[in-house]
Amino acid sequence: MADRHTPSLPSTFDREAHPVEFGRVLALSDGVFAIALTLLVLDIALPAAAMGGNLAEELADRQAHFFAFAISLLLVGTGWWSHHHLFTMLRAVDARVIGMNIVYLGLIVLVPFAQSVLAGYPTDPLAYVLFAGVLTGIGAIDASIFAYSRHAGLQHESVTRAVVRQERVMSAAFTLTFLLSMPFAFVLVQYTGLIWVTLPVTQVVLVRLLARERPEARAAAR
Amino acid sequence: MADRHTPSLPSTFDREAHPVEFGRVLALSDGVFAIALTLLVLDIALPAAAMGGNLAEELADRQAHFFAFAISLLLVGTGWWSHHHLFTMLRAVDARVIGMNIVYLGLIVLVPFAQSVLAGYPTDPLAYVLFAGVLTGIGAIDASIFAYSRHAGLQHESVTRAVVRQERVMSAAFTLTFLLSMPFAFVLVQYTGLIWVTLPVTQVVLVRLLARERPEARAAAR
Amino acid sequence: MADRHTPSLPSTFDREAHPVEFGRVLALSDGVFAIALTLLVLDIALPAAAMGGNLAEELADRQAHFFAFAISLLLVGTGWWSHHHLFTMLRAVDARVIGMNIVYLGLIVLVPFAQSVLAGYPTDPLAYVLFAGVLTGIGAIDASIFAYSRHAGLQHESVTRAVVRQERVMSAAFTLTFLLSMPFAFVLVQYTGLIWVTLPVTQVVLVRLLARERPEARAAAR
Amino acid sequence: MADRHTPSLPSTFDREAHPVEFGRVLALSDGVFAIALTLLVLDIALPAAAMGGNLAEELADRQAHFFAFAISLLLVGTGWWSHHHLFTMLRAVDARVIGMNIVYLGLIVLVPFAQSVLAGYPTDPLAYVLFAGVLTGIGAIDASIFAYSRHAGLQHESVTRAVVRQERVMSAAFTLTFLLSMPFAFVLVQYTGLIWVTLPVTQVVLVRLLARERPEARAAAR
Repeated sequence: MADRHTPSLPSTFDREAHPVEFGRVLALSDGVFAIALTLLVLDIALPAAAMGGNLAEELADRQAHFFAFAISLLLVGTGWWSHHHLFTMLRAVDARVIGMNIVYLGLIVLVPFAQSVLAGYPTDPLAYVLFAGVLTGIGAIDASIFAYSRHAGLQHESVTRAVVRQERVMSAAFTLTFLLSMPFAFVLVQYTGLIWVTLPVTQVVLVRLLARERPEARAAAR
Repeated sequence: MADRHTPSLPSTFDREAHPVEFGRVLALSDGVFAIALTLLVLDIALPAAAMGGNLAEELADRQAHFFAFAISLLLVGTGWWSHHHLFTMLRAVDARVIGMNIVYLGLIVLVPFAQSVLAGYPTDPLAYVLFAGVLTGIGAIDASIFAYSRHAGLQHESVTRAVVRQERVMSAAFTLTFLLSMPFAFVLVQYTGLIWVTLPVTQVVLVRLLARERPEARAAAR
Repeated sequence: MADRHTPSLPSTFDREAHPVEFGRVLALSDGVFAIALTLLVLDIALPAAAMGGNLAEELADRQAHFFAFAISLLLVGTGWWSHHHLFTMLRAVDARVIGMNIVYLGLIVLVPFAQSVLAGYPTDPLAYVLFAGVLTGIGAIDASIFAYSRHAGLQHESVTRAVVRQERVMSAAFTLTFLLSMPFAFVLVQYTGLIWVTLPVTQVVLVRLLARERPEARAAAR
Repeated sequence: MADRHTPSLPSTFDREAHPVEFGRVLALSDGVFAIALTLLVLDIALPAAAMGGNLAEELADRQAHFFAFAISLLLVGTGWWSHHHLFTMLRAVDARVIGMNIVYLGLIVLVPFAQSVLAGYPTDPLAYVLFAGVLTGIGAIDASIFAYSRHAGLQHESVTRAVVRQERVMSAAFTLTFLLSMPFAFVLVQYTGLIWVTLPVTQVVLVRLLARERPEARAAAR
């Protein structure tokens, strides 16, 4: 049923019309998140050389690693959740979204690396800058995919202006928290994590403020 | 068809209405289980330094590792099965279930670590406490997701009261076996595994008892 | 619509009626195969210590590793294909199939380990016995799932008697080739691989013989 | 509804008629790509021995590793995209496509290995030959699956002649760039990457040329 312009291959993949092609983007993503979550644990492995020594001491020595593991687990888990949330809003993906998603996954893959550096150099500001940098990047690419998909008309109709506003505020809070913590790392060093920990609090406050402002947003915030 | 309150993004994902979003929760989970199953084998790898020596001796030396591998495989496999069983009962997931599921996966990821510690310190009670602790946590989070999803009305209608009762008993048996083995580890040390091994027996006995008690439960136990 | 016996949870998952539950068994399996395929490459990694030396020599020194990688890739790939083929015949899975499938995956996970032992001890008969043992196990569990699923009525109707016969012959050829190579390993040592390599030939011959015997089987063999 | 020739098992799996079987081929592939993407990061891990030293120096020392990571991420990401693109055109897979796909995945798995060699031996031409060789292989198998699936009638009808022509040109550009860079590696050594970097430029130019040539191709190129 081709008209004069031969029908080209689709380069935009709709959820309904191309479920396999849309699904593969998520399958690759879920795979990368699953592996990133699992790689995190490799960093807490006890060194083979230590085997046979005193386990309690070994575990105590690796306290920083357990702490870094817990934080990274939380962050990669939250990252997956944001990714899930982002794609909930998309009706379709196109070549640019696919390309940006690969960059997203490349940054997720760097989290276990940044975690390992953090655990190995807990007193070096650079380790905190590296970690915060990877997370700033994740926040930025997430916001870019959201903005681009809005612009390109790839979002569901249920993504109303109130939702868009909320997304932008939450996304800015995430990205700015990590971006601004970078210079502070040179002063605060190992206390830099305290800035990161304020994030959930900031987000809850913002959700409340947004909800107070407009009744529609209140519904969206639920 | 939006009313005065703008339709917000869904935060509860139904199997039928949001198959992609529901499916991603399982895709992430299956990915983590698959990797956890596969990571287990890394622990039995022969040290590169030993290469070229006597293979029979090397394999014999690593007996504890093979034993720990077999137990962990059984446990991660059973863990996946429980997870599969749990989600069979869910009609939908919401943000809390997703959050609790990430904690669940974080604990699954710790199994290969706990196995490796167990194989490396087979005479240290702490290694058994660590292993039993991870499994107690898995039992507790599984029970929490079940209880919460019941409370939040996320379960299928086919999950009757008899099924709920059975779930609770089986779940308690699992969690208590590992929890109670923790103090015993200080006395029994390497024989702590014998307590764990009673679990399948306890579970079969409990299923029979539950089935005798009520005819409906008997059907459910099949 | 519950009758006197309250409807219990399903323990048999049909492709059509429970696509999510049926699909998860395959998702876990595909994940394990994907990781097993990928882990194989870890064994050919050049030792960090060697970095900076002569690359051509390093690569030549690791010839046995490349050879073992190629064989394992072929075997894990073929294993996935057999698994794919096996589940093509299943209309539904039940608890036993799920349990047997976990054992199947546990054996697939052992292939990279056995490969690594083979590459590290190319002159020790035991390494060949270990490798052949893992593959004998894979053949046996594959045949068991086929036999059980037939017995339990879990197969598609399109699995005719001619197909069953062919499956049994092919499966026996696979399992027996590896089983019988085990004693020969003590005599042939590094030439044991030559027995394994006869497998594709044997299988092609068997398919032809089966096809000649009965016209229905000929169709099935295509 | 069997006719005289008993219905055999399907060996060609259609997207619509056998969604589970078709889907597993992609699930295995996405799993392998996800793991390959993630394994890339293992190569940039700082050596445990260095922990506690000067982080800035350590990171600077590993510059070649970061560079190799970025290139490989781009390449594996692009590889996944090509694979996605290739399977978009397929209506069904048969045994040969499945077999060729396993070879494809085997080559993808080699990318992190080739990357690690490249980072470890940045001045050895052989490292560049190895890397370019793996990518030449990927280009060749991609083109083979395309050609075979066309020949076997496994492609969608929307794959018109203009699309086929474009696929062939793009595929040749990819494969030839890496193939031809191999002899140059002995002269250019660490500048070999500059040849690889011309690839996106070449591809954009080719797309434009193809589009100018024929109006139908222009539609396809969009």
